[in-house]
Amino acid sequence: MKVLIIGGVAAGPKVGAKISRLCPTAEVTLVERGEFLSYAGCGLPYYIAGDVKEQKELMCTPAGVVRDPVFFQNVKNLKVLNRTEAIKIDRNARAVTVRDLRTGSETVLSYDKLVLATGASPVKPPIPGIELPNVFSVHKVEDAEAIRAVLAENKAKDVVIVGGGLIGLEMTEALVRHGARVTIVEKLPYILPLMDVDLIIHTMKYLESKGVKVRCSTSVQSFEGNGRAEKVRTDKGEIPCDMVIVAVGVKPNSGLAKDAGLEIGKTGGIKVSSLMQTSDPFIYAAGDCTEGRNLITGEPCFVPLGSTANKEGRVAAVNVCGGKDFFNGVLGTAVAKIFDHTVARTGLGEEQARAAGFDVVTVLSPAPDKAHYYPTAKTIMMKLIADKKSRRLLGLQVVGPGDGDKRVDVAATAITAKMTVDDVSHLDLAYAPPYSPAMDNIITACDIARNKMDGIFEGVSPSEVKAMIDRKDDMVLLDVRSPAEVQAMPFPGSINIPLGALRMRWQELPKGKEIVTFCKISLRGYEAAMILKGQGFNKVRVMDGGLVMWS
Amino acid sequence: MKVLIIGGVAAGPKVGAKISRLCPTAEVTLVERGEFLSYAGCGLPYYIAGDVKEQKELMCTPAGVVRDPVFFQNVKNLKVLNRTEAIKIDRNARAVTVRDLRTGSETVLSYDKLVLATGASPVKPPIPGIELPNVFSVHKVEDAEAIRAVLAENKAKDVVIVGGGLIGLEMTEALVRHGARVTIVEKLPYILPLMDVDLIIHTMKYLESKGVKVRCSTSVQSFEGNGRAEKVRTDKGEIPCDMVIVAVGVKPNSGLAKDAGLEIGKTGGIKVSSLMQTSDPFIYAAGDCTEGRNLITGEPCFVPLGSTANKEGRVAAVNVCGGKDFFNGVLGTAVAKIFDHTVARTGLGEEQARAAGFDVVTVLSPAPDKAHYYPTAKTIMMKLIADKKSRRLLGLQVVGPGDGDKRVDVAATAITAKMTVDDVSHLDLAYAPPYSPAMDNIITACDIARNKMDGIFEGVSPSEVKAMIDRKDDMVLLDVRSPAEVQAMPFPGSINIPLGALRMRWQELPKGKEIVTFCKISLRGYEAAMILKGQGFNKVRVMDGGLVMWS
Repeated sequence: MKVLIIGGVAAGPKVGAKISRLCPTAEVTLVERGEFLSYAGCGLPYYIAGDVKEQKELMCTPAGVVRDPVFFQNVKNLKVLNRTEAIKIDRNARAVTVRDLRTGSETVLSYDKLVLATGASPVKPPIPGIELPNVFSVHKVEDAEAIRAVLAENKAKDVVIVGGGLIGLEMTEALVRHGARVTIVEKLPYILPLMDVDLIIHTMKYLESKGVKVRCSTSVQSFEGNGRAEKVRTDKGEIPCDMVIVAVGVKPNSGLAKDAGLEIGKTGGIKVSSLMQTSDPFIYAAGDCTEGRNLITGEPCFVPLGSTANKEGRVAAVNVCGGKDFFNGVLGTAVAKIFDHTVARTGLGEEQARAAGFDVVTVLSPAPDKAHYYPTAKTIMMKLIADKKSRRLLGLQVVGPGDGDKRVDVAATAITAKMTVDDVSHLDLAYAPPYSPAMDNIITACDIARNKMDGIFEGVSPSEVKAMIDRKDDMVLLDVRSPAEVQAMPFPGSINIPLGALRMRWQELPKGKEIVTFCKISLRGYEAAMILKGQGFNKVRVMDGGLVMWS
Repeated sequence: MKVLIIGGVAAGPKVGAKISRLCPTAEVTLVERGEFLSYAGCGLPYYIAGDVKEQKELMCTPAGVVRDPVFFQNVKNLKVLNRTEAIKIDRNARAVTVRDLRTGSETVLSYDKLVLATGASPVKPPIPGIELPNVFSVHKVEDAEAIRAVLAENKAKDVVIVGGGLIGLEMTEALVRHGARVTIVEKLPYILPLMDVDLIIHTMKYLESKGVKVRCSTSVQSFEGNGRAEKVRTDKGEIPCDMVIVAVGVKPNSGLAKDAGLEIGKTGGIKVSSLMQTSDPFIYAAGDCTEGRNLITGEPCFVPLGSTANKEGRVAAVNVCGGKDFFNGVLGTAVAKIFDHTVARTGLGEEQARAAGFDVVTVLSPAPDKAHYYPTAKTIMMKLIADKKSRRLLGLQVVGPGDGDKRVDVAATAITAKMTVDDVSHLDLAYAPPYSPAMDNIITACDIARNKMDGIFEGVSPSEVKAMIDRKDDMVLLDVRSPAEVQAMPFPGSINIPLGALRMRWQELPKGKEIVTFCKISLRGYEAAMILKGQGFNKVRVMDGGLVMWS
């Protein structure tokens, strides 16, 4: 069996190595356009930051061997042609024309099975000046080297990052740590559109606390300067710069597949079955060049990630070798570290869930990630999205300094298993004070969701409360914090009755009016609502997440 | 409705507060034998260590309010009688006789529903001298205060901890950090019997590296000294001491229930249905006094934990109030921090799984918890237990400095959902270099399990290899590390052919003999086995987990 693989970064080498192990007699050739193979693209921001010291660490095995063509030949029995571009697939002849980029000579390679792992490329918006030499993408090793060279010369004092996505944020940390003044320019009203607004505003505040300027709802019109970008012109004024990073997303490299007549999905990725087979049964595809499927909705999606590429590569390899394995989709799980702040999510966001027709219940729950008395406990701000009808958990998002990725991984597992919030609330998760509260954050959030679904109490989001205040609705804002807390952080327009006094003082409140209760995190706010409900008040709601979630 | 709750530490207050919220007209009384209410028993080792500075932190709400009887009355509408002991349940009269421990006076409290949350007590083995004043348990706030007093006077230079369970290990860290020389005495051959031996030997080595002496297979015969324990006499000699901690487990406080004729399980815990109802439908029980059920096997178990107590308490409260909620069981999930080393587990251990009739496949997989090039990456040594027939994940255990609790929580979720190793291997877990490798540790471990189940390769545990060496079996130990690695840590009796040279040099190996391949973590060992298999070798096995798991 002759297998040809196009693409040598993530999915390609995985497919090749696995085929070679499963089917030692297969003749496997891998073609890669670039110089470097099997490098950790996701590691580039950390190489630029200086966390990773040497380029070769990004392309070594854990045992420290560089993954070059000799390594692939000797260890994996893969014939690797780097700096070689695939230019045409002839599906009838089962052959691919490739061009050696060193010599320009072309060869035709035949195959029994072809695997496309052509990856993705950074989107280059047609902004005048984008070709200036100090305007960079962060996609290839060469990009990282070029940025490092500028940093080494101390020539990046003012950096504009165009795009507030994951890579933009990872680069923000890298550059701030190099002493740069960073401005993020995002054309949408908020950064990180994969996160819900209730949470991401807290990340934006955090970035500003680190001295980063965040300019949302701002469109870049041009990069201008004398031979290099010296300022970024936007629809809201100019920003001086001596370096620009453009990180507005990536698009699948599906041109070769499209030219060969393979089916392309509406996201632009190559359409594949759960076997990772394209519309041509002799051609498989894996990794960033393919279109994914959302595990909850079944909708097509494009979520390029090294983790998914590896999993898809393994599935493709098993099926190429005549086995049977399935990759059914993804949850859009993502995580990023920004200084000491974690942003992570999985499943459906609130709007996504509504658009998919679910009867959405949401929870905002800020809580310490460990026993609250444990000294290293840090806050996780959590948003949970569930379906009232089926009671299924649909999504979980976290921001904050606490250990959020753990809870997102638990949620990703639970969502994949179609667990209800009831199921999750009973999970036997690992508990000791240095690892979690006795009721883990995700369990507490599920219990709040259950209480809402069961009509035990009603929540109101901080943004709705803000709108009610702005509209001057006739309501009572009941703050049940202690007087000391209120003094330290007053909430104008509210009435303060500390929770411990409410059972004596509820008569002070008007029964006819709507009452919104809150405290710091709305745990006491919830208690207060239950006390009032017990006294016959029936228009009481709790501000979701309390003042911690207010911003 | 009159509800009486006996026990005010973990499950009891949870039950009371939840009932009071769900059913504001209920008259709820809570009786607690001790002075203190709702304290974090699991936090005591950290209070002793000094991580938690003040006693009241262990009994405050996150907002800093001490949970005393006034708090419970004002906030939760619970009438709390502390220092009051329940001495007799009259099920016919639905009444409990309680004694005020301050005055000795007895009262009879009637109930419509009774909830037992009597907790557990430390096992006091009948060892002569156990009553000496410097022999302590770690169970109540008073115990912690007494130990702190000794530490404050600098009178605990040599401490013997009897029992190598979770609390013994947490106390080890606490005391070493106070400058004590600690010896752990465990009568079983290994510490932490809830962990498999392959992993726990690494924790024992780690403890020794911290200067802790670990004496296993050692029985304590007496504590001896002049008015205080000065030495611990064991079947293997004497150990000098100036303090002893006895932490040999806890037993459920089920005597009151037993005297009332309620059904007691074979573990000694009160038998409850999944509604948390005892054999008397008017009496519920929750927390450490009850018998649990293993979610996989359905077998009774006794796993006292604050996390479970809270969940069971909520379920009991919902059902007391006429709702319907179910607590189906636990997985025996546990975690402990010992200095910078995490020990965690969930589900069935290897022997447990065999005893339950599963066709067990195990994986030993040591790997970095983050991208291997990320500077804070640390090792997780992982053991996975699965069933070959159903392919279900049955258990996961971790030790090491890495972020193991996250993977155990994912496993606990997956096991509860009855996921197969195939399901887990496709999970969309959160990936970025500071959080996980591109293939998360649990995904890699599941892929190894799948390869074993599918007959792609065969493993052999380090302990079996040791036995083969000791028996002088006629075999080849093939070390495929680099010459530099071999020089740094030679493995006597092995042949070294670096992986990269094996495709050229396999002819040097005898085809008839059994070959065991390995490297540092046996990833290259696995590659080597596949290369040899491809060349027609058919008696090749891979040493599970490689030299990292060897000890």
